[in-house]
Amino acid sequence: MTDFHLDPRLASDCIILGETDFSLLLLMNNSLAPWFILVPKRNETEIFELPKEDQLALLEEINLLSGFLRTVMKVEKLNVAAIGNIVRQLHVHVVGRSSTDFRWPDVVWGAQEKTPYSIAEVRSILAALEGYLPEGILLKRWPEGR
Amino acid sequence: MTDFHLDPRLASDCIILGETDFSLLLLMNNSLAPWFILVPKRNETEIFELPKEDQLALLEEINLLSGFLRTVMKVEKLNVAAIGNIVRQLHVHVVGRSSTDFRWPDVVWGAQEKTPYSIAEVRSILAALEGYLPEGILLKRWPEGR
Repeated sequence: MTDFHLDPRLASDCIILGETDFSLLLLMNNSLAPWFILVPKRNETEIFELPKEDQLALLEEINLLSGFLRTVMKVEKLNVAAIGNIVRQLHVHVVGRSSTDFRWPDVVWGAQEKTPYSIAEVRSILAALEGYLPEGILLKRWPEGR
Repeated sequence: MTDFHLDPRLASDCIILGETDFSLLLLMNNSLAPWFILVPKRNETEIFELPKEDQLALLEEINLLSGFLRTVMKVEKLNVAAIGNIVRQLHVHVVGRSSTDFRWPDVVWGAQEKTPYSIAEVRSILAALEGYLPEGILLKRWPEGR
């Protein structure tokens, strides 16, 4: 994919865990809730503008992260959203929510509270994710660039 | 579909515009932003738990509403989300956003401001939607039950 550059706001707020053929996988650097962001390596800004095959690739990755959050991280509820009012680059939030978390039952978008991850915490999440995902799907990029 | 009943909170907040084979189509009764809600006639509470064919049916309906909001209603941005922290029945928000709207750039979920639609406004939106959607997809239900 040419001409793809991660939006600077996403790069600043998130940890780049890795990438798939289709997208970058980010972790919002806020340990108050497990919060992944998929950034398709595409230039469209809305899901419905993507070609059908790209929509299906995105759906598959959302499904994988959803399964990980529910079965491994044991979250109570998933919040899945494409918003993009501030950052226009297409990105999809897949957030694991629990009734004891920092914003429940409100949505996490717009919240100011933030507790960055420790390196050990990121390593642990990434290891669990690598163990869950089908082999070969995720090309790990963390801690590149730290 | 047996054993499907619309959640009372959704029924109270929204206008039932109609239904497809797969879902109910609601309009949030708040004219401050064009805000559709798809409620699959299913019992799962997360998208990833739906069988693949149901996921594809949902994606297709999201695409249709997205196209309507962008090409007919000329919104600047789409906000598409499955949240469900309060109402657990699976429902997907497809909201048309504009930089002049009541909450921009914040998300609409949790907002208290509300201006209910007039009957003429609902009639107009429904007519425009029926004109946009492929024939036979939407079984109109409004103003049934008013």
